[in-house]
This record gives sequence, structure tokens and C-alpha cells, in this order.
Amino acid sequence: MTIKFTVYKGSKDGIKQTETEREDLKRDEVLVRTTHSGVCGTDVHYQSVEMALGHEGTGVVEATGPDTKLLKKGDRWETLCSQRKMYGLADLDQGSFGTHAVWREAFLFKVPDNMSNEDAGPLMCGGSTVYNALHVAGVRPTARVGIIGVGGLGHLAIQFAAKMGCQVVVFSGTNSKKEEAMKLGAREFYAIKGVKELKIEAPLDNLIVTTSSQPDWPIYLNVMAPNGVISPLSVSAEDLKIPYMPVLLNGLRIQGGIVGSRQVHRDMLEFAAFHNIKPIKMTFPLTLDGVKQSLKTLEEGNMRYRGVLVAP
Amino acid sequence: MTIKFTVYKGSKDGIKQTETEREDLKRDEVLVRTTHSGVCGTDVHYQSVEMALGHEGTGVVEATGPDTKLLKKGDRWETLCSQRKMYGLADLDQGSFGTHAVWREAFLFKVPDNMSNEDAGPLMCGGSTVYNALHVAGVRPTARVGIIGVGGLGHLAIQFAAKMGCQVVVFSGTNSKKEEAMKLGAREFYAIKGVKELKIEAPLDNLIVTTSSQPDWPIYLNVMAPNGVISPLSVSAEDLKIPYMPVLLNGLRIQGGIVGSRQVHRDMLEFAAFHNIKPIKMTFPLTLDGVKQSLKTLEEGNMRYRGVLVAP
Repeated sequence: MTIKFTVYKGSKDGIKQTETEREDLKRDEVLVRTTHSGVCGTDVHYQSVEMALGHEGTGVVEATGPDTKLLKKGDRWETLCSQRKMYGLADLDQGSFGTHAVWREAFLFKVPDNMSNEDAGPLMCGGSTVYNALHVAGVRPTARVGIIGVGGLGHLAIQFAAKMGCQVVVFSGTNSKKEEAMKLGAREFYAIKGVKELKIEAPLDNLIVTTSSQPDWPIYLNVMAPNGVISPLSVSAEDLKIPYMPVLLNGLRIQGGIVGSRQVHRDMLEFAAFHNIKPIKMTFPLTLDGVKQSLKTLEEGNMRYRGVLVAP
Repeated sequence: MTIKFTVYKGSKDGIKQTETEREDLKRDEVLVRTTHSGVCGTDVHYQSVEMALGHEGTGVVEATGPDTKLLKKGDRWETLCSQRKMYGLADLDQGSFGTHAVWREAFLFKVPDNMSNEDAGPLMCGGSTVYNALHVAGVRPTARVGIIGVGGLGHLAIQFAAKMGCQVVVFSGTNSKKEEAMKLGAREFYAIKGVKELKIEAPLDNLIVTTSSQPDWPIYLNVMAPNGVISPLSVSAEDLKIPYMPVLLNGLRIQGGIVGSRQVHRDMLEFAAFHNIKPIKMTFPLTLDGVKQSLKTLEEGNMRYRGVLVAP
């Protein structure tokens, strides 16, 4: 017996709807019916590649393999690729842009009871990535945390850092997102377009870079506190290019990272549920047209702030 | 009453011998008679600047100010500039290239009893810098620690890391320093000139870069373990330029740093004394000719491995 389901794939000619199939569930495999999927910049990156898109999925367990231990039909679960078999590199025939997917139980996450699948989707990659950056940097509750960019990742980073007790300092091109950033928990906000020298209230202990390209590093290095930690999260094919001596003399740490490991991811979900951290969403139907429209909206810079595809 | 002493200064026309003077000792100031000074690449950098050179000095206390608490005449002490008033930026009229210097007691370090002033000199900047890199990176005793370059810093880094229990993996241009590196505690040694792809026994958890310019980053990124820490120590006016996605995907940390803070510096001296960690030295007289000759030897790449100026 085989399991058949619909997925939305990237291709050189645009997004395509296609069928994929899996053998019946083995070992600890779980069949998830996808109810929602966040739309991430990485999906935009891969939209011309021959692979099923989507990696911020939430759904409901439809069936479980013989060796599953924790999940049962009806549970609401999350998918997250492990670092070594990650999105774009493995399981190219299925993703969260589709009707169903089959994943190992060990890489699925239970959605907290007081969190909707719709809100949970964008936390699976966007939320997990910024939470992990704060976690790995060992951010202190007294830290001044700079966040560059108010988008899918940035608007979640503001909330996480603020709920951790930090002073959140936001940098954005213009003042257009200021009010929203302050509501989300920012303490200071700086419009940086054309600015040659930052003047902020006090130096930053942490800096989370969520923009889609590298920032103007020198102006930020000037406002870093000694032993500060910089977490660049932008996906970029270019080299990291940053002034050298300020990094040495100030003992700065540049910390790479992606989504959290599984325990960090579980902590993130619990923290978000407890503090009611939610994405600000634009929704689209989880259909071929909806997928296309959501990617276009994101690519054109008009997403406020994370797209979520909703199964019809 | 004033204190007069000789210093060796950089200038556009070469190294010059000159007199400097200080008012009588105030507060916790200490007059040190310099017995030895290590010769560092940073001295080469500053040799055309109008400032007294030398920052790896050891000596003997000659007199103490009214508020000193720990030091007395005859103690053997070390100088180390604090990060905020560091070499090249403050106290330009005195250094360890000279007969004497006046420093605050709080920034002097007692030389352990079983360590000679001659051996202690190169630990004051070179040793402190590599020890601090290992300390800040939180190196584990089970770590595989890569060290690029076998010079003033590198040959000390091999010893510190080996004595911490680490597997030390050395990268050098040719095999000419292999035997010495293995004797100092290296477990593996790789000649890298012309090498396009490194093949080493297992990935590296830490990488200490001690060469005077940036290495060929891509070949090293390929052998870093997930969550590895890279500590670039080279002084360079260029930007740090490093492939971006491998840093993100592998969760690598690039950790800037210079010499240790004072407590780390004390720990370094104690650790070096306990484990008999010593520089391999070439000695020169602490005279105008000796200063010139030592800087030239270092600049031409012929120092094996740290120069020490010895007061006549």
C-alpha cells in the first residue's frame, strides 16, 4: 500500500503542483496532514529548484508507524528538518507546501495546547532561528539586544528578546515600522537609511542581523560593547566581510547559526506559548495560486511580517 | 624630583634612543627596571610611529609609590597595558624597550618563582594572547585544536593547548618546523603550501590563527566541526573576509580577542609555571643596535620563535 499526496514544487518554470508517494509507514514514521505552513525567504531562494517547498509546517497526525512512541492520530505536530538532513539537501520530494508529509517521529514537535497551528507555523523556522541565536549567544536578561530588520525573523526576535527581559534596540530603514516595533517590545528604534554614524543610548551587548543582505558593518561595530556577540542570520551567497581590528580589539564574537537543535526548539515553543509570542501574519490559501502569491509578496518586500499558507 | 630613563622609540627615520622622564612616584605607581623584553609583531607595526616601543617587559621593582600594597623593591614584575589604555594608544613615552618604566601597581604581574624574567617576557603578550583565545573559546580538554602558524604566538599556543589535554593539529607552510612542533606537543602536523583541500584525521573544534595575514579560509572551514570556534589573532588592517554560509550552517563562532584580562593573565602565568611552558628564544642586547636587529629579524621572518631583548 502506498500513501499519495500533493506537494508544491519549485522549478525553472515556476511553482508546480504535483503528486508524490511514499510506501506505507515504517518504523517511527508519521503521516502528517498539513494544515498550515509559514512562508520563509529560504522558500523564495529555492523556488526555481526542482524540490518540494515549505519547512514551517504545522498539521495533524493522521497515522503513525509501528515504532512510534509519543504521537497518536489527532495530535498537532510540527516538522523541523535536522541540521544534517536539512531543507534543500534531503527529502526533496515533500515539504510543508502540500497536503501531507511523512516524517520521523523524532523530528516532529508537539504544538502547545494554547497555540494555534496558524501561529505555530512561522515559529518553526523563523522563530526557532532567532530564539536559537539568543540561546547560543547566552544572552543575559540585562543585555541590550540590537535587532537589524523588522521582517519575518526580526518581528519575532523583538518579542523573544523583550520577553527575556532585554532592552531591545531596533534598526530599520525608515520609521514606517516604528510603532509596530515598539508595540512588540522594542525600547528604542532607529531609522538608519543614509545614517553614517549611529548615536544610541548605550552600547549593545548583542546584535541579531535579520536583513536579507549584510548590513553596513562599520556603523554597527562602533556601537558594540566589549565582548559583544553578533549573530548574522541572513542567508547570503557572498562572503562575510567585516572590519577586522574592531572585532579583535573589542573581543567581539561573530556567531553563526540556523534553526535550533531539537531541545532548543522545544524550549522555544514552550517560551512562546507561555509569553503569548505570536507572528503577525498575512494568510494565503495552501493552493498552487496561494503558494505563488505568497512567494511573490515576500519577494517584493510586502509581507507584514510572515506569510502563512492555510489548507483549504 | 624626577625619574629619568632611556627608551627606544619608533620614528619615520628608524629606531631612536632617547631619554624620558616622570615625576616622582605618586599613588600606586611603581618604578620597574626592565631586565628583559619580548619582541612582538606589534612592535614591528609601530616602528615608524613616534612612540616608545615594547610591551612584553619583565623587570625588577626599584621603587614604589606611597599607596602601593603588594609590591616591594626587588620583586620581579610584569607589565601589561589594560585594554582601554593599550599599547600604541596611551603612554607613548615609555615601554619595555628601555631601561626603566613607571606603571601602576594594579597593572603589573608577579613573575612566578620558578620562571625566569627571560622566559616570562614573551608570555606577556604572545602567551597571554593565545592563552586568552583558548580561555574565551571555552576550549574543552577533549577538543581538537588547530593552530595555524608556528611563530611567536603559535609555538606557545601548541604548548598551552597540549598541556590542557587537547589534540593539537598544526598547520604550517612547509615541513621545516614539523619536528619542533611535534616536540612542543602537536599530535598532527600538515604542510599547507599549495594545498587545495585539507585531509586531516578528524574535524577541529577550535582553530587559532596566529599567522600575520588571514589564512585561506575555505580550506579551513571545511575541516571545522559543528559549533567550532575560530580565533583570529593576526593583526591586519584588512577586512575579515570569510565564506558566509559555512559559518551559518555549521554554527561556527568567530571570536575576536587580544591579550587576557588581568585575572586571565595571572592564570596564564600560573599555568605556564606549573607546566614549564617556555618560549623558544633568540636573544639580543637591550640596546639601540639590539632593538634594531631584533625587529629586522622578526620582519624578515627569521625569528625562531620569539625575540627577547636582554638588558646589558
